[in-house]
Amino acid sequence: MPSEVAAWAKARARKFFSMKTLRRRLPITQWLPHYNKEDAVGDLVAGVTVGLTVIPQSLAYSSVAGIPPQYGLYGSFLGCFVYILFGSCKDVPMGPTAIVSLLTYQTVHDMGPQYAILLCFLGGCVELLMGLLGLGFLIDFVSGPVASGFTSAVALVIVTSQVKDVLGISASGSTFTEMWGSVIESITETRLWDTLLGCACIAVLLLMRLLTMVEIGPKDDEKRSAFHNFVNKAVWLVATARNAILVLACGSLGYWFALRGEPPFRLIGYIPPGLPTFQPPPFSVIKPDNTTAGFVEMVSTFGSGMLVLPLLSLLEDIAICKAFSSGKPVDATQEMISVGLCNIANSFVQAFPGSGSLSRSAVNNCSGVRTPLGGLYTGLLVIVALVFFTPYFYYIPKATLAGVIIAAVVFMVEVRVVKPMWRTKKSDLIPGIGTFISCLAFRIEIGVLVGVAINVVSILYQAARPNIDVEKLTTRKGVDYLMVTPDRCLIFPSTAYVRNLVTKHGVKQGVPVVIDCSHIYGADFTTAGVVSNMTEDFIRRDQPLLFFNLKPGVVEVFEGLQPKGLVVYYSEDDLDTILKERFGVATV
Amino acid sequence: MPSEVAAWAKARARKFFSMKTLRRRLPITQWLPHYNKEDAVGDLVAGVTVGLTVIPQSLAYSSVAGIPPQYGLYGSFLGCFVYILFGSCKDVPMGPTAIVSLLTYQTVHDMGPQYAILLCFLGGCVELLMGLLGLGFLIDFVSGPVASGFTSAVALVIVTSQVKDVLGISASGSTFTEMWGSVIESITETRLWDTLLGCACIAVLLLMRLLTMVEIGPKDDEKRSAFHNFVNKAVWLVATARNAILVLACGSLGYWFALRGEPPFRLIGYIPPGLPTFQPPPFSVIKPDNTTAGFVEMVSTFGSGMLVLPLLSLLEDIAICKAFSSGKPVDATQEMISVGLCNIANSFVQAFPGSGSLSRSAVNNCSGVRTPLGGLYTGLLVIVALVFFTPYFYYIPKATLAGVIIAAVVFMVEVRVVKPMWRTKKSDLIPGIGTFISCLAFRIEIGVLVGVAINVVSILYQAARPNIDVEKLTTRKGVDYLMVTPDRCLIFPSTAYVRNLVTKHGVKQGVPVVIDCSHIYGADFTTAGVVSNMTEDFIRRDQPLLFFNLKPGVVEVFEGLQPKGLVVYYSEDDLDTILKERFGVATV
Repeated sequence: MPSEVAAWAKARARKFFSMKTLRRRLPITQWLPHYNKEDAVGDLVAGVTVGLTVIPQSLAYSSVAGIPPQYGLYGSFLGCFVYILFGSCKDVPMGPTAIVSLLTYQTVHDMGPQYAILLCFLGGCVELLMGLLGLGFLIDFVSGPVASGFTSAVALVIVTSQVKDVLGISASGSTFTEMWGSVIESITETRLWDTLLGCACIAVLLLMRLLTMVEIGPKDDEKRSAFHNFVNKAVWLVATARNAILVLACGSLGYWFALRGEPPFRLIGYIPPGLPTFQPPPFSVIKPDNTTAGFVEMVSTFGSGMLVLPLLSLLEDIAICKAFSSGKPVDATQEMISVGLCNIANSFVQAFPGSGSLSRSAVNNCSGVRTPLGGLYTGLLVIVALVFFTPYFYYIPKATLAGVIIAAVVFMVEVRVVKPMWRTKKSDLIPGIGTFISCLAFRIEIGVLVGVAINVVSILYQAARPNIDVEKLTTRKGVDYLMVTPDRCLIFPSTAYVRNLVTKHGVKQGVPVVIDCSHIYGADFTTAGVVSNMTEDFIRRDQPLLFFNLKPGVVEVFEGLQPKGLVVYYSEDDLDTILKERFGVATV
Repeated sequence: MPSEVAAWAKARARKFFSMKTLRRRLPITQWLPHYNKEDAVGDLVAGVTVGLTVIPQSLAYSSVAGIPPQYGLYGSFLGCFVYILFGSCKDVPMGPTAIVSLLTYQTVHDMGPQYAILLCFLGGCVELLMGLLGLGFLIDFVSGPVASGFTSAVALVIVTSQVKDVLGISASGSTFTEMWGSVIESITETRLWDTLLGCACIAVLLLMRLLTMVEIGPKDDEKRSAFHNFVNKAVWLVATARNAILVLACGSLGYWFALRGEPPFRLIGYIPPGLPTFQPPPFSVIKPDNTTAGFVEMVSTFGSGMLVLPLLSLLEDIAICKAFSSGKPVDATQEMISVGLCNIANSFVQAFPGSGSLSRSAVNNCSGVRTPLGGLYTGLLVIVALVFFTPYFYYIPKATLAGVIIAAVVFMVEVRVVKPMWRTKKSDLIPGIGTFISCLAFRIEIGVLVGVAINVVSILYQAARPNIDVEKLTTRKGVDYLMVTPDRCLIFPSTAYVRNLVTKHGVKQGVPVVIDCSHIYGADFTTAGVVSNMTEDFIRRDQPLLFFNLKPGVVEVFEGLQPKGLVVYYSEDDLDTILKERFGVATV
């Protein structure tokens, strides 16, 4: 085995440093040489459109993550640039996302932005390592039902977290139940104007969202006039940039009120102008009581979130790649590496963790993005906003940002998957609903672990209890025999069970027993031991036991224990001959 | 799904209360009606022989468990009686065993006999519940390599725990490393006479053990004279009762010395005479500082040991049943129920946890036991010992008991499995050696959990990464196509991987793709989603995708999502027709 490990490490190292790998690991080398004017136009339009979406969203998601709004903007430019070099999927807009912001909030436990920046760095390292070590299969253990349950719960928790800003009250708590408890306690302090503005914003955004589906003119593209096309494009642009437009409008309203004294609703307030300084992430931090929290203390705050957050970030990112891959294979390893590097880079400009954002990737795709270079314009727009516009952000109402978030995440509640799930496999509802409920009752990370655990137990149970077909058949020459067919692999948790079943039926019927091993692709030491005992039992009972279609690799494993009387055959024609010659069983 | 759960519960309840089940759950109703004189003789001889072994062993194992010697005797009679009613395996001698004693020691953490008695009760309840709920498959997750690693480590730890008594020093510690550390610290206090006596006892026991293999006279049984037979029987009896004989001899020596003043070696000391009182196990206990430890505090001391101890007790018990089943099926559920009931009963007479003892079962079997009634005589002998002989146990030297244990467990180190394991499947050495080392480095229960975890991870990895055969074939009419054959089930952790592989090869070759689903016995919602995406991708690329030999149950799952263009065929003959009619692919 040590030699196998060494060979594995060698193969991995060789693979990693080859020229082909280098090209694969720097996808920009694949698309940049063929870059043309059309690509440039597509990327520019899409990049700017995404920029108009990301600025209000990143301000808003900061509040989901529980840290001041500027940190959202800090996380929306450098990562975009890094992704251009390493990203393998043109539609991924790197930056703060709803899911990762909520996970950041629950992992950082309100300890402030320094903790979030360190989490961004460490999460990036975990993602990078997962990519380099080929641990992508871990993500596959988050099944469809668990992902749906988790996403739906995240949406509900985020909506809940924004209710306080819509109502204009103060509330706290990190889980769904805690938040609602806190909201209900302070419900009497509800501020009328915040509530009205928040609800109005949500209503306007939902209506504007419908505009994306509006098209005037004939259905056939070719029959439309230039006017039809212009109106359609304009309506679509307005609908797509709805967040930016609404924030601009409500910001102006806030400014107008502020000029005339205290506005009737709460504003997000002062945002430091300019770019963040470029500096390493904090590995220790001074606490409010003037003592220093070291690296270990900070990391221990994160707990299992330090592994779950990167895992779910990658899950979101890879889901985007798959959704927009149009049938091309997705290089999950490359995505892990690039998201990891983006987060590591981001942690040097004081960002909190981010990933590919599902909602903005749809905007990106619809705007006609052609390569990852679109991220360049998004990033530049964010830099412009940071340098020139931060003084104006002061006047954006909190209720408007809350509205932006609520209108964005409410469609993440996946009620629509319940019916197909019921139709395909009802038992898949158990991990789905289990995840959903535990994500709401506890922290999101616990809920996901619960869901994965339910799934893992069911896989293990399947490994331990194969279906076994037992049939009484007759050979061509008329000898009765029992055909036992396990439908999957014989590895240790199932062998004792299979042996018991074979013995039970074998003793009851008293005829030769054939085990059909067509579906058995592997075996281990435990199986070899059980098979060796079983063949001895059959010899003692003077009952023939034969193995049909046993793969040569498995025969080798069995023969390691030198079992007595292991009889294997591969063609039905041989059965009668073997029964007669080896066991003296025949009919006249 | 709720209806499925209800149906399961109903089926279980119906099964549980049927007459047939009642007969199965009270195995005594099966053998007692046919009980005859030969059975009675066999059981009497075997029961008495086992009794002569269990008395010294149970005194010794108490010291392994870290509690006074009489508690071992308390655990060696009532359980035997209960097992007569419920036990399904004639060879199982219920009582303290090396493995369970060590686990008790590590779970109770030197908190005294009251904790051990409660553990006996709770462990029994866990065993009973595992039987009633059909959780037997949990035991199957302790694979052969893990069991070997664990047993070998237990033997080494037990030998280590007895070294102090052989050397006559005081030492403490609960793990292998701690114990040796402690022994080495006090090595200078070694007492000469204890050491000499202990080593002599071990040597004598190992020599007497060889006697079991000595036979005089001709090899052929029929040619032996009555004298030959008598000598052989006598030698065998002496060898088998070697523990009792040695303890009797050394006890007499101790008595002789005690009459003449202080003996040169340490004795086990006062044992309260008489039977234990019949009373419920303690659910709270008064601590040395006169405060009361309640039930919750006591249970929290046990930790995960409260689940691992019953699991490993059952593992030992069921291993015995399998070893002596002579090819008959073993009713694991019944064994869980009976061992559970025995331990629950034992906890009412102040016993610590026990199980079927592997070493005594060999004695039982060789002595010609015929039914579980042999336990009656064993139990009666222990009662006689408790009532009449406890004053004499005072004089047994500690070093002798330590010798008894060491000579018994040293053969549990399973060096002999390494070679066949290497021959059958080298990678199985990883969980084996992993378990062995972690059992020595940490507590046994942790080591077993580590081993099971290694195994579980490998099962999950196998579920996530099936082997996939990709072959370029030609149909009968000369159409090239790609045959993709996954060798195992398509469930969620593997679907994304399989899809990626199919897409990669499909895009590269550009010919029709056939997925051979012969080995796929089940699918879930995640798979259905991936398959539905995959068929759409292939339609978009205008490339035919066909499923060969897909089980009707799986087709149903896939169709729950109403995928476009799911083409399934079951006979090679149909391939050309389908390719031509559905996809217009044909050669001239």
